[in-house]
Amino acid sequence: MKRIGIADTTFARFDMASAATNELQSLSTGFRIIHYTVPGIKDLPVACKKLFEEQSCDIVMALGMPGPKPIDKQCAHEASTGIISTQLQCNKHIIEVFVHMDEAQTSKELAFLANQRTREHARNVIDLLFHPENLTKHAGQGLRQGFEDAGPVQ
Amino acid sequence: MKRIGIADTTFARFDMASAATNELQSLSTGFRIIHYTVPGIKDLPVACKKLFEEQSCDIVMALGMPGPKPIDKQCAHEASTGIISTQLQCNKHIIEVFVHMDEAQTSKELAFLANQRTREHARNVIDLLFHPENLTKHAGQGLRQGFEDAGPVQ
Amino acid sequence: MKRIGIADTTFARFDMASAATNELQSLSTGFRIIHYTVPGIKDLPVACKKLFEEQSCDIVMALGMPGPKPIDKQCAHEASTGIISTQLQCNKHIIEVFVHMDEAQTSKELAFLANQRTREHARNVIDLLFHPENLTKHAGQGLRQGFEDAGPVQ
Amino acid sequence: MKRIGIADTTFARFDMASAATNELQSLSTGFRIIHYTVPGIKDLPVACKKLFEEQSCDIVMALGMPGPKPIDKQCAHEASTGIISTQLQCNKHIIEVFVHMDEAQTSKELAFLANQRTREHARNVIDLLFHPENLTKHAGQGLRQGFEDAGPVQ
Amino acid sequence: MKRIGIADTTFARFDMASAATNELQSLSTGFRIIHYTVPGIKDLPVACKKLFEEQSCDIVMALGMPGPKPIDKQCAHEASTGIISTQLQCNKHIIEVFVHMDEAQTSKELAFLANQRTREHARNVIDLLFHPENLTKHAGQGLRQGFEDAGPVQ
Repeated sequence: MKRIGIADTTFARFDMASAATNELQSLSTGFRIIHYTVPGIKDLPVACKKLFEEQSCDIVMALGMPGPKPIDKQCAHEASTGIISTQLQCNKHIIEVFVHMDEAQTSKELAFLANQRTREHARNVIDLLFHPENLTKHAGQGLRQGFEDAGPVQ
Repeated sequence: MKRIGIADTTFARFDMASAATNELQSLSTGFRIIHYTVPGIKDLPVACKKLFEEQSCDIVMALGMPGPKPIDKQCAHEASTGIISTQLQCNKHIIEVFVHMDEAQTSKELAFLANQRTREHARNVIDLLFHPENLTKHAGQGLRQGFEDAGPVQ
Repeated sequence: MKRIGIADTTFARFDMASAATNELQSLSTGFRIIHYTVPGIKDLPVACKKLFEEQSCDIVMALGMPGPKPIDKQCAHEASTGIISTQLQCNKHIIEVFVHMDEAQTSKELAFLANQRTREHARNVIDLLFHPENLTKHAGQGLRQGFEDAGPVQ
Repeated sequence: MKRIGIADTTFARFDMASAATNELQSLSTGFRIIHYTVPGIKDLPVACKKLFEEQSCDIVMALGMPGPKPIDKQCAHEASTGIISTQLQCNKHIIEVFVHMDEAQTSKELAFLANQRTREHARNVIDLLFHPENLTKHAGQGLRQGFEDAGPVQ
Repeated sequence: MKRIGIADTTFARFDMASAATNELQSLSTGFRIIHYTVPGIKDLPVACKKLFEEQSCDIVMALGMPGPKPIDKQCAHEASTGIISTQLQCNKHIIEVFVHMDEAQTSKELAFLANQRTREHARNVIDLLFHPENLTKHAGQGLRQGFEDAGPVQ
């Protein structure tokens, strides 16, 4: 039985964890989800580490929604750096799903994007865990999560 | 008996540690507070590490007030990066409460913001330590500390 | 029998792994290629680490195509930082081949550049693995990958 | 007998180590100073580590004077990041005293600032080592080193 | 017999390793030089680590010539960060000699600067290895490598 961790925040303005859980369960079986919520994105790296080391997760989704200001961009950078360090310390993947608030023009668009990107990355999680060959098939194909795929160039 | 570390600075222009202590004690019991003051925010990472390793703290609040100049922003970035590294090395949470001096227009507003944000993060500390399910309940709800909550988007 | 890892992404818009494989095989024999695909460049550091530690690779090519926006540049920076950390943890080379989408004016140019840079770096991989003296011969010669060599100054 | 390390550079335009030594000796006794000079600020992190691990220092002052150009700012950032990493690896404080050349308008002002900031940080070193309660007393009081104290806000 | 590592790149447009070797040999004896060439500056951190751990070097010179574009500046930053990490992991000095292409106006000036800076840093290497007291004598004297010394301020 595989264990998938979901780390999310109270700062985000959309319940990305529910979207992730719903999508993961619609895509596959044979795993258990462990959900862990922290205040903000800078709390995510150690949350992911705890999911690996204290909850024996095999892979983790790190869900966050950085704000639009320069300080928010800096926080996102710090969080991402810590998330990469965590992966290297644990030798396991963390799929970071960050939706920057200034990627969308309206609240509705933001909710749509957060839902869509989370769900498309849930598929990446299932593939990394159970079907890595699916990713290899799409290598260099210009896939995107949340927006339309860019597609390959010739 | 849990141990909560509070690391703060002589550089900050507001006594955030007293606000934190007061709020923590009003919220819960069953813990002891260990207070450690250093000169500036770049001294906070190792101060937190010492609170974990030499004082057996279970969680730490890192309180700081970065100045408004570009060099201050860079210092805050370095401090935050070190605070994340410390968490990963110790597998414990550090709740970073930074109030940037240019977030407020007046001294009074700065004091208000520092007090408010510290107190709201004190609640996060209590929740992480004793009631993690409270954070899960608010996942994706657009909570803010010091300013009004942003709320969720649909 | 040496083992060369190739880590690439589904985000990239060109199949750099095929170019790498084709070039490596045209240049030398006596090695096996292990191909591992992840969603994006920020997933590359741990992918490389897994290629070293779980697949016993002697060297890895990390192939990616960062987008043109500021956030993409930041992602590339985070990925590169993680790729350097991975090398230091494993004491082995990772040849990072990143083609920034704004390096090219047209899709055709982008494909050309991605193909060319990957192939020229494949030669570096073979040299590092089998003929390090070839690199020493070209020290300070202003070599470039994908664009024309800059050449030495006098 | 405590051991205080002083790491400085040949790049700096003021003999901050002499100011530090003079001030430390005027403030307290019961310690020995170990002085180690390197070319530039990017050499300071490993110099500090050597002072801890090869010279058994209990605390280190890292004295540097970054230049005014963007590349100098980047070097200072890299040095500071390394100085924080060193502290975390050794569980000991490094008091970083950096005087940026563009903080002063004239050479005389630069010398004054370098002297003053170094001396005021020497006091922090003595306090951290012998009288940590002195720092706690000044928590949140808006202290500054080299410039006038900002003072607390209400 | 001390061992001095020289790590350089095929990207650089000047043979800095020959300048370093020539200068080192003119300044002192009693050491052996180990030369290792990699493609670009981001390959230097692990190259230095290999020189320490696989070639038993006592000190390393890391020679590189970052290009003039923003992406080149970012690469230099990543390389420098990795070079500092390597020093901390090995407890040994790496003297980084980077000549940014936009520091010079003409090719001739670039060659002059690369030669001069490398040679002046070779002296720092000899001093760190054999005569650390020479550096202490020049602490705070405003020394520069490649350009005229800035000198001390009063």
